[in-house]
Amino acid sequence: MCGSCEDAKANAGLPANKEEVFQQVIEAKKKGGPINPYGPNPADYLSNVSNFQLIESTLREGEQFANAFFTTEKKIEIAKALDDFGVDYIELTSPVASEQSRADCEAICKLGLKAKILTHIRCHMDDARVAVETGVDGVDVVIGTSQFLRQYSHGKDMNYIAKSAIEVIEFVKSKGIEIRFSSEDSFRSDIVDLLNIYRTVDKIGVNRVGIADTVGCANPRQVYDLVRTLKSVVHCDIETHFHNDTGCAIANAYTALEAGARLIDVSVLGIGERNGITPLGGLMARMIAADRDYVLSKYKLHKLRDLENLVADAVQVNIPFNNPITGFCAFTHKAGIHAKAILANPSTYEILNPSDFGLSRYIHFANRLTGWNAIKSRVDQLNLHLTDDQCKDVTAKIKRLGDVRQLSIDDVDSIIRDFHAEVSTPLVRPSEGSALEEDVSINEGPETKKQKIEN
Amino acid sequence: MCGSCEDAKANAGLPANKEEVFQQVIEAKKKGGPINPYGPNPADYLSNVSNFQLIESTLREGEQFANAFFTTEKKIEIAKALDDFGVDYIELTSPVASEQSRADCEAICKLGLKAKILTHIRCHMDDARVAVETGVDGVDVVIGTSQFLRQYSHGKDMNYIAKSAIEVIEFVKSKGIEIRFSSEDSFRSDIVDLLNIYRTVDKIGVNRVGIADTVGCANPRQVYDLVRTLKSVVHCDIETHFHNDTGCAIANAYTALEAGARLIDVSVLGIGERNGITPLGGLMARMIAADRDYVLSKYKLHKLRDLENLVADAVQVNIPFNNPITGFCAFTHKAGIHAKAILANPSTYEILNPSDFGLSRYIHFANRLTGWNAIKSRVDQLNLHLTDDQCKDVTAKIKRLGDVRQLSIDDVDSIIRDFHAEVSTPLVRPSEGSALEEDVSINEGPETKKQKIEN
Repeated sequence: MCGSCEDAKANAGLPANKEEVFQQVIEAKKKGGPINPYGPNPADYLSNVSNFQLIESTLREGEQFANAFFTTEKKIEIAKALDDFGVDYIELTSPVASEQSRADCEAICKLGLKAKILTHIRCHMDDARVAVETGVDGVDVVIGTSQFLRQYSHGKDMNYIAKSAIEVIEFVKSKGIEIRFSSEDSFRSDIVDLLNIYRTVDKIGVNRVGIADTVGCANPRQVYDLVRTLKSVVHCDIETHFHNDTGCAIANAYTALEAGARLIDVSVLGIGERNGITPLGGLMARMIAADRDYVLSKYKLHKLRDLENLVADAVQVNIPFNNPITGFCAFTHKAGIHAKAILANPSTYEILNPSDFGLSRYIHFANRLTGWNAIKSRVDQLNLHLTDDQCKDVTAKIKRLGDVRQLSIDDVDSIIRDFHAEVSTPLVRPSEGSALEEDVSINEGPETKKQKIEN
Repeated sequence: MCGSCEDAKANAGLPANKEEVFQQVIEAKKKGGPINPYGPNPADYLSNVSNFQLIESTLREGEQFANAFFTTEKKIEIAKALDDFGVDYIELTSPVASEQSRADCEAICKLGLKAKILTHIRCHMDDARVAVETGVDGVDVVIGTSQFLRQYSHGKDMNYIAKSAIEVIEFVKSKGIEIRFSSEDSFRSDIVDLLNIYRTVDKIGVNRVGIADTVGCANPRQVYDLVRTLKSVVHCDIETHFHNDTGCAIANAYTALEAGARLIDVSVLGIGERNGITPLGGLMARMIAADRDYVLSKYKLHKLRDLENLVADAVQVNIPFNNPITGFCAFTHKAGIHAKAILANPSTYEILNPSDFGLSRYIHFANRLTGWNAIKSRVDQLNLHLTDDQCKDVTAKIKRLGDVRQLSIDDVDSIIRDFHAEVSTPLVRPSEGSALEEDVSINEGPETKKQKIEN
């Protein structure tokens, strides 16, 4: 079995003072004093799954989405909505990107939001000097460290990178605002180069260091490994940024938290360069499955749908049909076996509770895969009364039609009502007609129904 | 550092005979003979990232998607397209779901496809007897093992489950076709119950056992742990099935392969119950990043887009804007710093090569985040000639307009052509006019351009 997984299991039973133990070990390590190599391992206490923060980057990474053009008014509307949702940080496009970018950054800083405002710049004094004058609460500095980026983007070596980083960090710190240093394309960078530069900037005293999967190549176990290793090298918080090219951006973010990262970069619907980054909504789905109380205490999940609609409209895209939480079918149950269990207890086939997001579930009963439990539930909704055996009979009729063509709810309701009329006719007038009449009435029913269906 | 990650790293440098070593250890284990507990660990040789198979379930799991109604003709069209793409197995809806489901299953079995045909049934003799008569190459049997499903779905205990499993498995085996036994909701099932039933069915001789994350709750490290543990208990192949409610279905599938699973259930666009399962295209993106040669040798990736369009049309959904590979912006690069590096070497910001999928990349240059390298590239495309400094000047003009409103490619091309006309005018008639005339021409240019833009 995987050592790290055993750790995770052991964590589940950790004493309440696990934070305390963790701090003791960390302090001992900081002091450089003797520590028992077989004693408690700080790595066992790393997980921030129940203690994470969001850096919301719709107005930075999201502006790099192909369709994005945000006016000042739209940026302010989005910033306010993000703040209301409860994100911890809002990251904005570099003020040197364009004159309007600078003005918008200043305008958003003046809104007095609860969320801290960051801007994202290249590791260069020209950018830093402009950034610190905008009124932001912090500056996110980034520089490419992979061989690819060093060769084809900025063309600098690691010594130059370290020198620039130190200059920019000390300058930003002198202004009394937060500073993050991140490498770019971290997962294709040399591990020794990375740890060297991170240790250097940690010693100067950055608020956090960032790991970025700029091309979306990382997989969860690589993420766990790198974050856990980095956690043993730096004392500051770790932020992570995952692109979604290979579909792992949510899982990588979660695994980074398990390994000790504290902050996750997200954007609404994941919009960003190419097919984007970890989506806010998808991460909420992942995190609420892990620690519902923590997520509900921090974020207004029932505003998620409005927030996604706001951004989707602004960048002219549709909410993907399979979007976590807000996709049109995220809480739709169809197969008969699923529907049956959901009706008995929704937790059987739902790890998320739709009401946490102000949404509701839907049992899809108008199809050939339906089962009699789903149909019985619909019969109840229609305020009709059929026995279980009768429900099974009408279900068989519905499945037969469902084999012929796509069914609408109206189709199913018609079949149910007809069937109900047939079987209940003798019951409502038991003494009015003869046995013969009853038989006739029963025989007539199906004919009538069949015609209706064929029409 | 994580032990499992160290294993993975060690694997990268394994000798060519790693398969051989693995087989030796496995054989020794099977024989029950003495094995050196400190010797090679089979777990170190588990990864099937370069040796996986696909069970394509668009016509089973996908039929449980809210919008799905497939006619016989459409099912056959999809099955042929999947077969042409190269999937290893095609899984079909249970023949007992409806009469047409049975007939369709028989029809697809008669197509003579290269892919093996499976059908998916409940662990019940009534279903098994029908399934084996359809002509399928194998039967996938499933039963709920979690407390939730045992209580609210079938209401049976583990002894009953084992008894039914043995009966069904021996019956299907007697017909000479493949048999898979899967638990349902595996990640919320008791681990001892699970390992017990898997060992039992493995001893009877199933072709593979399945793990299913039916509610989409699993995270990658849990997946790694469970698959790796199971791998030490059974000798048959392991199949995995991941729902995507919390956005981890691709990452979980990848991690399962790392832990020794061999087969992954997928569907086109991930369609299935709720928001679906591991999508075929997304998994291809993940796997090609891991082992391009293996993926290209097995699957016709250039047919992915047509396959997705076929299924999207059939179930009336749009391809999500952020879909891996085929989303409209998956290979679009926008920020100036990205565009510059992509132009120098696409690998700087691309882990996937669009041409592997018959697609092409696009440098988005018509926006305020653009950089002069992207504009220079456009200038070249337009067959115009500007110096680097001139490109920087025209880029500044483009960014200014990009601050005011969303730009089209035509806008940018107009600005470039105007600018080119201005700066090249003196050059094409150096001796024709006086210095004064040249000045006038230069001064006129910007005015003309400005008017055009304002119009």
